Amino acid sequence: MDESERLAWAYLSRVAEPPNPKLSELVAAEGVIGAAERIRRRDADPKLLRSTEARYELDCARADLDVLDRMGGRLVTDRDDEWPHAAFAAFQGADRDRRPDARAPLVLWVLGPSQLCDIAERSAAIVGTRAATSYGEYVASDLASGLIDRDFAVISGGAYGIDGAAHRAALSCDGETVAVLAAGLDIPYPAGHSALLHRVGKHGLLVSEYPPGMRPTRRQFLTRNRLVAALGRATVVVEAGVRSGAANTAGWAHALGRPVCAVPGPITSSSSVGCHELLKREDVTLVTRAADVVEVAGRCGELAPDLDRPTTGLDDLSDEELTVFEALPGRGMRTVDEIAVTAGIPATEVLGPLTMLNVRGLATQENGCWKLAKR
Amino acid sequence: MDESERLAWAYLSRVAEPPNPKLSELVAAEGVIGAAERIRRRDADPKLLRSTEARYELDCARADLDVLDRMGGRLVTDRDDEWPHAAFAAFQGADRDRRPDARAPLVLWVLGPSQLCDIAERSAAIVGTRAATSYGEYVASDLASGLIDRDFAVISGGAYGIDGAAHRAALSCDGETVAVLAAGLDIPYPAGHSALLHRVGKHGLLVSEYPPGMRPTRRQFLTRNRLVAALGRATVVVEAGVRSGAANTAGWAHALGRPVCAVPGPITSSSSVGCHELLKREDVTLVTRAADVVEVAGRCGELAPDLDRPTTGLDDLSDEELTVFEALPGRGMRTVDEIAVTAGIPATEVLGPLTMLNVRGLATQENGCWKLAKR
Repeated sequence: MDESERLAWAYLSRVAEPPNPKLSELVAAEGVIGAAERIRRRDADPKLLRSTEARYELDCARADLDVLDRMGGRLVTDRDDEWPHAAFAAFQGADRDRRPDARAPLVLWVLGPSQLCDIAERSAAIVGTRAATSYGEYVASDLASGLIDRDFAVISGGAYGIDGAAHRAALSCDGETVAVLAAGLDIPYPAGHSALLHRVGKHGLLVSEYPPGMRPTRRQFLTRNRLVAALGRATVVVEAGVRSGAANTAGWAHALGRPVCAVPGPITSSSSVGCHELLKREDVTLVTRAADVVEVAGRCGELAPDLDRPTTGLDDLSDEELTVFEALPGRGMRTVDEIAVTAGIPATEVLGPLTMLNVRGLATQENGCWKLAKR
Repeated sequence: MDESERLAWAYLSRVAEPPNPKLSELVAAEGVIGAAERIRRRDADPKLLRSTEARYELDCARADLDVLDRMGGRLVTDRDDEWPHAAFAAFQGADRDRRPDARAPLVLWVLGPSQLCDIAERSAAIVGTRAATSYGEYVASDLASGLIDRDFAVISGGAYGIDGAAHRAALSCDGETVAVLAAGLDIPYPAGHSALLHRVGKHGLLVSEYPPGMRPTRRQFLTRNRLVAALGRATVVVEAGVRSGAANTAGWAHALGRPVCAVPGPITSSSSVGCHELLKREDVTLVTRAADVVEVAGRCGELAPDLDRPTTGLDDLSDEELTVFEALPGRGMRTVDEIAVTAGIPATEVLGPLTMLNVRGLATQENGCWKLAKR
């Protein structure tokens, strides 16, 4: 990408609130330099003129790129190898009557060593409430590190609470993690996460649809959520209140045809109410382990192993053996006839099971009388 | 029921391990006295002879009835008005190839003032692990008292843990509760619950398929579970380990076409693993409130109310109003043109939203400059 193109992308990134389908169409038709020229000349679709009216005269592309260059970041567009075409293709399948914003971004401001397209191939979004409990933060960390162990990248939104726990856990096992921001790359938001976001940008990826200097707004958080959902092969909601941005991200994942997972928690915790609401839907998967997430987000056939089940020495007994076993006294001895009455089965059918129990070391006999073996 | 019939029912209750379909058929064909006579004479289907061989000579019917009478209990059979015909009809629909024990009981030993048929009309089974956590016991109590408030009877198995918490909560709100026992009515099992079971028998109902003196066995617990599932219009599993009797009761509820509900809990708790396994099935309903249980177990149209959602003063704002609101400065003032650039919408479209925000008390202006109103 040459410098005049970079300047045009940067200009277009700020001139209209993303996503703007008319703007994307214009770029596709005219190229990025032509499109920027047309916007400046006010020669475009009336709707596009309207949505660019407030900012078309404001050109801080040069300054924005300087900020980006100083940070060591890059612009990524669909002309670049790094562009996650497959992940963003999901926007084409969404119901745009219900979700007019179901559009790929025009351009992304990116900082970090990871490659966006690689990451989007094997990834899960871990999202949740900022008002996380220690339970939620523990679960987010545990899932994130389990996913990293299984070569997944962990996508999240960089917020306090669940997001932060997921990023931290991923970083601490040297895994790949992506924070998709609702502000410019140079605006550490929330401020308390500036060190964490710096580490994500150094070891993983910071991604934003917004140019440097842009402060986040409510609308930008919601718009950003669609990118979190699109970049994760599945979205996992760890904790969410009854009103939660995580539910919005889950809604985006649904709209994009991506699996949605939720982690249950105590029903006494207001931070799990949103998860339980999600889990009442048929299309949300209850997950308790990273392996469960891999089963829905991984390659075909990457199934979660069965849970370990405790076993006892009685598991392999037949019904008759178990019935006879339970008719044996702990103290004293019983005759075969007495055992038959207690067990409620014919005396002729007691000796066979008794012998098997004896072989297994569960029953002992003396002079034709039987009792439980000491264990 | 005259005394000779009572004696015959009591005899048949002990002579074979329940449920025994051949025995039920014989009683249906010959009447209870004739059936007892045929068993004693060894004149019956060979399979039935075999299953009664161990105990047909043992006649403690008189003694069993004496115990029952002293306790103040009663025998209930399908000849009695109290018999819950509707509840037990579910056994006819079950898949008997997979569940040969899906049979109504022949006779029930019952103690307490409640009427079984009334109770089974509006009831829920609350079951769970004996190894309950304080969370599980709290939830069981909360659900039980919520169900009692809604005129439900609470069915359970009298065990330690979840069962006990459910019975106790029901008793403490003067509600109806039924303990279905795997032992005779005179055998308080577990021993530590003898005072609780006594109270259930005094204020609700103790129910057993087994004659006095019978001690519980593993098989009897599993057989008993079918009656818990049949007497509850829905079965709610509150906490369950990875191997749990509660899962068996849930299995019975499924087999009988009754709704199964489960309560989620922390994924870090081994006592909730069984609930989460159940909740992964499509046909298990996640419940967090008594109202959720009533929705599946109550009358048609008894829907759970929506959760209370916190609201903010911004909820009713239009998209444009919200966008303008977020472009207002907290300190200092901005002109309409500055607000337009920040919000990314044409200056001509800023004044309308600003006026609305002003009316709602969200924005103030001075000399044509605007800022957020102090709240």
